[in-house]
Amino acid sequence: MPENLRDIGEFGLISRLDELIRREGVQSTGLSLGIGDDAACFRPREGYEILVTCDCMVEGRHYLSAHIRPHDLGRRAMVLNISDIGAMGGRPCYALVSLGLKADTPISDVEAMYLGFLRELNPFEASIIGGNLTKTENGLFIDITLIGEVEQGKMIRRSTARKDDAILITGYPGQATAGLEMLLHADSHEDLQDHPLIRAYTTPSHRAREGRAVALSGFATAMIDTSDGFLGDLGHLCEESGVGAILFQESVPMSEALIQASKQLGKDLYDMILGASDDYELIITCDRESVDQINTILGSINQNPVSEVGRITDAQDGIQWVLPDGKAKRLTPSGWDHFSE
Amino acid sequence: MPENLRDIGEFGLISRLDELIRREGVQSTGLSLGIGDDAACFRPREGYEILVTCDCMVEGRHYLSAHIRPHDLGRRAMVLNISDIGAMGGRPCYALVSLGLKADTPISDVEAMYLGFLRELNPFEASIIGGNLTKTENGLFIDITLIGEVEQGKMIRRSTARKDDAILITGYPGQATAGLEMLLHADSHEDLQDHPLIRAYTTPSHRAREGRAVALSGFATAMIDTSDGFLGDLGHLCEESGVGAILFQESVPMSEALIQASKQLGKDLYDMILGASDDYELIITCDRESVDQINTILGSINQNPVSEVGRITDAQDGIQWVLPDGKAKRLTPSGWDHFSE
Repeated sequence: MPENLRDIGEFGLISRLDELIRREGVQSTGLSLGIGDDAACFRPREGYEILVTCDCMVEGRHYLSAHIRPHDLGRRAMVLNISDIGAMGGRPCYALVSLGLKADTPISDVEAMYLGFLRELNPFEASIIGGNLTKTENGLFIDITLIGEVEQGKMIRRSTARKDDAILITGYPGQATAGLEMLLHADSHEDLQDHPLIRAYTTPSHRAREGRAVALSGFATAMIDTSDGFLGDLGHLCEESGVGAILFQESVPMSEALIQASKQLGKDLYDMILGASDDYELIITCDRESVDQINTILGSINQNPVSEVGRITDAQDGIQWVLPDGKAKRLTPSGWDHFSE
Repeated sequence: MPENLRDIGEFGLISRLDELIRREGVQSTGLSLGIGDDAACFRPREGYEILVTCDCMVEGRHYLSAHIRPHDLGRRAMVLNISDIGAMGGRPCYALVSLGLKADTPISDVEAMYLGFLRELNPFEASIIGGNLTKTENGLFIDITLIGEVEQGKMIRRSTARKDDAILITGYPGQATAGLEMLLHADSHEDLQDHPLIRAYTTPSHRAREGRAVALSGFATAMIDTSDGFLGDLGHLCEESGVGAILFQESVPMSEALIQASKQLGKDLYDMILGASDDYELIITCDRESVDQINTILGSINQNPVSEVGRITDAQDGIQWVLPDGKAKRLTPSGWDHFSE
């Protein structure tokens, strides 16, 4: 039997994780007091505002433990929070991690998960400054609060898109849902872990650097990350901004891997691209004259694709999908609704 | 059947809670962006540091739903976070609430819980600025992150107690555990809800105002709240400060209700006072010459008792318990360990 929580207890685990964080993590600047007191404390930088987000992953609901390794689970849980900070234009600084664990959870799994958290935080010189551990009788949960900073006045909201703006999307939305489908249909998982679509699901990339660069440039009018799927989050952006949108089927990005998976799985390609998918790409709106500048900014960070896929319209038009022959149909954005499914 | 989450869905519940927060909550000063985007945003005050804590309550683990009403559960979950901010000398400002809910949870229960959160936050002009809702198949959980502020240099830590300091405790530790025992042994709960010991368990008071006043006075050397019980948290304070402590049995505070409950339940009075109990009182250490000043400060806030119960000693003495006849025995601090129990 591997060493588990029952063996070393809560305080034993806390001190093990403390040591791991000290050894493997970085020290954030501005931190006055980290883990170990009633609260953590940091000194905010002058000229900055503070961003805060929290997101939760529940076993059996947001992931299946048979399908994801603890290290990847840690990375994924942190990525989705980093993505939220990046989608506002911020830089992640401090994380608090609440874990609900079963008494027989192997200590090595918890440590692997923390290594996953740190792997995502370290590049930002962000650190884990608090959290808590709770025993649950049932499934594991991970609830992360991530605190970031953004220069005053530079935050980009989802509610400020304007009519006639261009709509850009980074990467290939739909890859994560294709990866999940492949996992669910596979006989064995181990040999699949390095497939690009499965990596897109188990350890998605965030676009936080991209989001921050776009925010600081001042060229974007609105931004949101795609955690509810492309159409779901475009729907949120439109609703909050009081606008509609038109999407051109011909402009929507698709990777070769996604096209292959669509055939293999017998799933409609556009359903995967538009539907619920945990991709953590960015939807960016901007003046049509600023598209080139945004492309240049994003191209200077990495080679991930950016695609101009449509335009912002009036609210009463809803979200329209334009086929190659020019015919349009109205789409109903339905984000991933966690209770009504 | 009462209206539940399956009926209105996640986005339906979010908009109901949004409305409730707008109607019943206060608007924090400094908030740039509240609920509804990828992250919330606030502008920190100049000359202040930021405090952050998070605490989690799991159904069947930290509370039994048959023993506590949703409104009280909300209050209690928020109180334990407010207590942490207060024990550092801070003022609560912003809360994020993560809820794991079952699909058949009545909406009215969730709303009652939120009213409980707001009831505790409103007096501080603190508000709920984010969070998330997750469906769980099993028990409910509430994970709250609370962000506060404290004047630069005024934070009080648990790790800075010094030899010969006086040890003070607010209120009557042990009342919460007595209340819990009464609930567990009662045939019916409804008529007990207003019993002072049961109130001490279901809706404990925090001492955040007291903690803040003590911190701003500069008279305390160290401070911690009692969430693991008097002895457990005194143990944390001693360990972190690298000191020992001596406690005088004759000086330990006990309420009439606690004495009665001890007889009624057949439980040792001092076991209840010293052992695991969710009281959220404060242990404060200070120079022995400053005890009167701290008493005066606390007395100006309310009439809750403050008792001088002992002195800080050398680390090698551990924690000693002095009986009325002068004989001493060594106590083993054992905080509430969530996994090894």
